[in-house]
Amino acid sequence: MSTFQTLPGFREFYPGDCAVRNFIFDHFRRTAKSFAFEEYDAPIIEPMELFTAKSGDEIVSQLFNFEDRGGRQISMRPELTPSLVKMIGNRANAMKKPIKWFNIGEQFRYERPQKGRLRSFYQFNADIIGDDSPGADAEIVALAIQTLRNFALTRSDFRVRLSDRKLWAAFFESHGLDGTDTQAALVAIDKSEREGEAKTLEAVEKICPSNAGKIFEGIQRLKNVHSPRDLEKFCATCENLADAASGCAEFFALLKRMDEFGLSDFVTIDFGVVRGLAYYTGFVFEIFENSGQSRALAGGGRYDNLFGKLGYSGLPAVGFAIGDVTLGNLLGEKNLIPPLPREVRCFIVYTEQTEKIAMAKVIALRERNVDVDYCLSPTSFGKQLKAASQVGAKFAIIFGDEEVKANGVKIKNMLSGEEKPVEISKLAEVISQ
Amino acid sequence: MSTFQTLPGFREFYPGDCAVRNFIFDHFRRTAKSFAFEEYDAPIIEPMELFTAKSGDEIVSQLFNFEDRGGRQISMRPELTPSLVKMIGNRANAMKKPIKWFNIGEQFRYERPQKGRLRSFYQFNADIIGDDSPGADAEIVALAIQTLRNFALTRSDFRVRLSDRKLWAAFFESHGLDGTDTQAALVAIDKSEREGEAKTLEAVEKICPSNAGKIFEGIQRLKNVHSPRDLEKFCATCENLADAASGCAEFFALLKRMDEFGLSDFVTIDFGVVRGLAYYTGFVFEIFENSGQSRALAGGGRYDNLFGKLGYSGLPAVGFAIGDVTLGNLLGEKNLIPPLPREVRCFIVYTEQTEKIAMAKVIALRERNVDVDYCLSPTSFGKQLKAASQVGAKFAIIFGDEEVKANGVKIKNMLSGEEKPVEISKLAEVISQ
Repeated sequence: MSTFQTLPGFREFYPGDCAVRNFIFDHFRRTAKSFAFEEYDAPIIEPMELFTAKSGDEIVSQLFNFEDRGGRQISMRPELTPSLVKMIGNRANAMKKPIKWFNIGEQFRYERPQKGRLRSFYQFNADIIGDDSPGADAEIVALAIQTLRNFALTRSDFRVRLSDRKLWAAFFESHGLDGTDTQAALVAIDKSEREGEAKTLEAVEKICPSNAGKIFEGIQRLKNVHSPRDLEKFCATCENLADAASGCAEFFALLKRMDEFGLSDFVTIDFGVVRGLAYYTGFVFEIFENSGQSRALAGGGRYDNLFGKLGYSGLPAVGFAIGDVTLGNLLGEKNLIPPLPREVRCFIVYTEQTEKIAMAKVIALRERNVDVDYCLSPTSFGKQLKAASQVGAKFAIIFGDEEVKANGVKIKNMLSGEEKPVEISKLAEVISQ
Repeated sequence: MSTFQTLPGFREFYPGDCAVRNFIFDHFRRTAKSFAFEEYDAPIIEPMELFTAKSGDEIVSQLFNFEDRGGRQISMRPELTPSLVKMIGNRANAMKKPIKWFNIGEQFRYERPQKGRLRSFYQFNADIIGDDSPGADAEIVALAIQTLRNFALTRSDFRVRLSDRKLWAAFFESHGLDGTDTQAALVAIDKSEREGEAKTLEAVEKICPSNAGKIFEGIQRLKNVHSPRDLEKFCATCENLADAASGCAEFFALLKRMDEFGLSDFVTIDFGVVRGLAYYTGFVFEIFENSGQSRALAGGGRYDNLFGKLGYSGLPAVGFAIGDVTLGNLLGEKNLIPPLPREVRCFIVYTEQTEKIAMAKVIALRERNVDVDYCLSPTSFGKQLKAASQVGAKFAIIFGDEEVKANGVKIKNMLSGEEKPVEISKLAEVISQ
């Protein structure tokens, strides 16, 4: 006889695990609602073309994709953004802007499972569509920060690294690089975090042999910019960067709004962050936790070209995603997930003689939204009270033969052991308090 | 330029749709919790063998199944029960019985999409594992009934049809049919609801030509049993049915408990229900709505052999599922889904001069779990108040230049138009009330 396994990178949620997942989801949802974001959802499976249209064919090797019985090439979603663009793109004219939407949903990527990375994981996605202002950028960053803070994570636990692809693009343009070369250079900068700066120099030499030294030196300087003043200086001293300096105005406006929000302390300027994904067009950010492991908790930015790229009328867009796996690990390590034991308000204890009236009260209490458990068949008081304490009952309500004859029951506080008599007719009232 | 479609039988949930889905899920969850069921979840994808082991290879034509990049034959789940059995089977020894679990999750079946039937749908599943008593059966039926009642559906909207496969099995055994023939006869009875009784007779003649008339007559008699008294009579007059009569004791115990619960009015005895699925071993039930369309809302029953069949130690089990599609249609038709408009508690109205203090309050209020929206960039008061009413704000909080100079703001009730001044320092307190 065989028994069955779960697929690698997928999770089962036993009730204790499910309680933790719900705890995390509830915080996502509550924070999003406090920011006046509306919840939506998209299908778990979409035509595969939707994902390759955004990310190119390279993404296929990471997809759970297949041909369905109708001959359609379909894929489980590796991310939510393309579906978001589809939903809004198909109805954009009828919708008031800005659109502030969030989702908590499962995503699927065929990757090698490892700590912090699974094949199935949940993401909290939040996006603002139809507003190109730095105010929208700031609202997105603030939501990401407040989400983490609502888990009781503090400034010492995480930091937001804020960067801007527009500034990088202006810098490369001022050194004569075209769009493709700029993209290659950004990929090299993205990789340098993991692979070291020598690799960046190598890549720059490949992209622009004639001017590599100067470009590399500029890259180093921009990566060392960590304050608005540094940034102004950089723009002033860099040749041909007047455009970038004016482009910086939006970046400064974002910083100003973060300051007004009282959230400056969480934010660092860090142009080492560029986000590998080609579709970002403006400011980008990543949130890292501050321990030695420095894992990424969240990432996002502005992507004003994606609606157009997927064939829809252009709409400015900005958003982020927080995954549940790394965040869950961090919350666990910091003891920020409270014990979530099974809890039941009442456990009804009864005899064969009192079964009829006891069972009527089981339903009557549940109708008042009081959670009630009981032994499914009559058994000894001892066994029933043991069962009551196993399910975490707060009160046992004892329908003893003598008490019921006198129209009463005993309420036993399972923690203190204290018992008090109550008239049956007043039970619902007493216990719902 | 192309735009993208959603796959047939899959749904997008725009915020209004998502609110309805959450309304339905919240009712499922709340009712399950009042019954002291614990929430769990299983992977959306499992090894395909898990599903064929339960249902045979015939199910494959209904699956979204494929080979993954690691060469595994996998499938999106068409139902939750096999995963439930796997999860409990793998840890049964360490778990206290009875296990009362529920799930609200997505299921996938490749069928022809039609009204009430989609390729992706949600099910509310609830099961009791490790208890073979009629008390467990009754708890399951009561949960199904109370779930529907909590949506404000009444006795006139739906009925529970209660039946018992054990009694059918005893009846066929008393007429000399073996297990395979009994299964075939049950399938014929299941089909007769849609295809008429002539087909049943045909099928019985095929299964047991020598005794078809008598068996068919017995089938008709049992299908006309609608009260405990009828049932006793049937057992008494039917030859060789002593076993069935004793087996009926459990069925009567279930009816007695439903009576104690005060839920008898919802229940009818109806042996025309046998449920096509071979894995049921005892009582079975279906819930139908009472309109002319008589759609099935829920179904379930006892399945004591499934753990053994999937290679685990035997455990008695009983459960049901309610789908979201037919139920959602019914609730819509009966106007039992309340309007769920977008609602925001506060909309902050500000000027360029008051932006700094207003934005600080945006975050401060959200930290107190008050939902707050505002225009992402400063604009005219008129436009801001229009935006406030578009998002369904209850209050506009107006940070006017003069008021703020005097450390005050105005709170405008968006419904009544009434305005009242408040000190900024008291704003959070006043608005969280």
